[in-house]
Amino acid sequence: MSMRIGIDIMGGDYAPQEAVLGAIMAQKELPAGIRLVLIGDRERGLKLLRDNGADENLFDLVHTTEVIEMAESPTKAITQKKDSSIAVGFHLLKDKSIDSFISAGNTGAMLVGAMYSVKAIEGVIRPVITSIVPKLSGGMGVLLDVGANADCKPDVLFQFGLLGSLFSQNVYKTVNPKVGLLSIGEEKEKGNLATLAAHQLMADTDMFNFIGNIEGRDFFNDMADVIVCDGFTGNIVLKFAESIYGILHKKNIHDEWFERFNYEYWGGTPILGINAPVIIGHGISSAKAFNKMIGLAREVTESNLISKIKSSFEYAT
Amino acid sequence: MSMRIGIDIMGGDYAPQEAVLGAIMAQKELPAGIRLVLIGDRERGLKLLRDNGADENLFDLVHTTEVIEMAESPTKAITQKKDSSIAVGFHLLKDKSIDSFISAGNTGAMLVGAMYSVKAIEGVIRPVITSIVPKLSGGMGVLLDVGANADCKPDVLFQFGLLGSLFSQNVYKTVNPKVGLLSIGEEKEKGNLATLAAHQLMADTDMFNFIGNIEGRDFFNDMADVIVCDGFTGNIVLKFAESIYGILHKKNIHDEWFERFNYEYWGGTPILGINAPVIIGHGISSAKAFNKMIGLAREVTESNLISKIKSSFEYAT
Repeated sequence: MSMRIGIDIMGGDYAPQEAVLGAIMAQKELPAGIRLVLIGDRERGLKLLRDNGADENLFDLVHTTEVIEMAESPTKAITQKKDSSIAVGFHLLKDKSIDSFISAGNTGAMLVGAMYSVKAIEGVIRPVITSIVPKLSGGMGVLLDVGANADCKPDVLFQFGLLGSLFSQNVYKTVNPKVGLLSIGEEKEKGNLATLAAHQLMADTDMFNFIGNIEGRDFFNDMADVIVCDGFTGNIVLKFAESIYGILHKKNIHDEWFERFNYEYWGGTPILGINAPVIIGHGISSAKAFNKMIGLAREVTESNLISKIKSSFEYAT
Repeated sequence: MSMRIGIDIMGGDYAPQEAVLGAIMAQKELPAGIRLVLIGDRERGLKLLRDNGADENLFDLVHTTEVIEMAESPTKAITQKKDSSIAVGFHLLKDKSIDSFISAGNTGAMLVGAMYSVKAIEGVIRPVITSIVPKLSGGMGVLLDVGANADCKPDVLFQFGLLGSLFSQNVYKTVNPKVGLLSIGEEKEKGNLATLAAHQLMADTDMFNFIGNIEGRDFFNDMADVIVCDGFTGNIVLKFAESIYGILHKKNIHDEWFERFNYEYWGGTPILGINAPVIIGHGISSAKAFNKMIGLAREVTESNLISKIKSSFEYAT
């Protein structure tokens, strides 16, 4: 299969070095049909390829002159910096010059860029950012939303269940993924106004395998493969988990399972509900993380997740 | 000083044994003026005192014939089981026959019982359940709400800031406690609808020391002494933290600081915003936890927290 994966080499705290080094790592293991497209300052990209002994002919480079900084206002930046690596990346993605797009840059700009270019899939009310949840049993769960939507109406939470279920099924190959609604009690009467109503919508559907409410203690057990919550709660839990990892690390406590809390283990996380595979990475992304993100972009593309989401939402609306 | 601390000996998974054993532990260290009042099945209470070599004359026993179970509907249970240990405990508290009340029983029934008997302090919109947050630096933070109010309006969040600040100042003796609003970014423009509005209210007050938004990664650092959030988010984070402690424990990873995640280290947590000191404990409370709760009830009473909250809310309304 032929595939082109676009990488914003200007995004992230250690850009462009870590992005290019990650691309070099990934390229060594990719089959011939998969091409990496480095988007950013061409001269700096070329120099990094050469300095690190990579054959520049194995990569495509797309030159851009602007960079969206981490602290910039997303909408303003995307509309004004037309020659930024993020804006150009989405332009290429919309054109189908690339099949997927990866960046460790400004998350807000990535979300806005996605909405302006490839756009939300018809029927999807709000695209969503996911996070990987390492299960104690060794499997992988998915948590969504982790920050794109601070306030979520019940129908939005319902759609997160469907999006997460399709992701888990197609990318993680989970059979009939169990979808849990994050709440403050297992009983359907427990929750806030949004989850109480979402619970009802989910209980009535046959579009995914809803197993009911789960609680804050159930992230790492096997109760649910997909954990649905609003982006406020999800973001707080995600950052809380990251801080626990950081504390363990500082205390020199090492454990194989807790090591999977390290963002490097996964690289990045997809935006779901848009018309193309887009992976966003942590601002501090290392070469190893970029390598993982490239692998994930490939998996998402090969799984045909996007067209499967489209079919499901066509059927739903 | 003379003081009477009421203990529901029928609440919790290991009742009455652990409650009575905890009372025996605590009694040994209490000054003569402080009397423990054991509320529940008198015969079972007396037998436990005798079997464990305690002098029954050092305790008061108030006999009750009913027990509110963990799964019972709070309002129904409180109104129908008038001779339950929780209902009788609140009756004694309202009468001032006891100065504080402790239970590891049905949390909902404790909240409803408090509202029906001693009632919310005038001006307090919603009483709140707190949780202790062990700081890496050794200090103690307070998180509120952890479950009493799933949906919180901005003015309710504002009041949590004041209640938490008064608790931190009077019970933990923190000087000018730093109050942080839990959100998804440090900037005041980041948050959900409730926190965005609450941020504004908090920024405009001189009733407590508001330091702005804090994030999920800031629980254990020294940014804030008081962490304010709605009861949905707080409950999920609390249970998440408990699950991390459980996982570390199972993995045989021992660390002095993480040991402070153990509920036993603290015993229980107060309901704030009502007209008397009430401490609620974990359902699995051990004797050690009951001993700690008795200590906390004493501290809260000695600090005159309730009258300080009353004065602040009088001034505020």
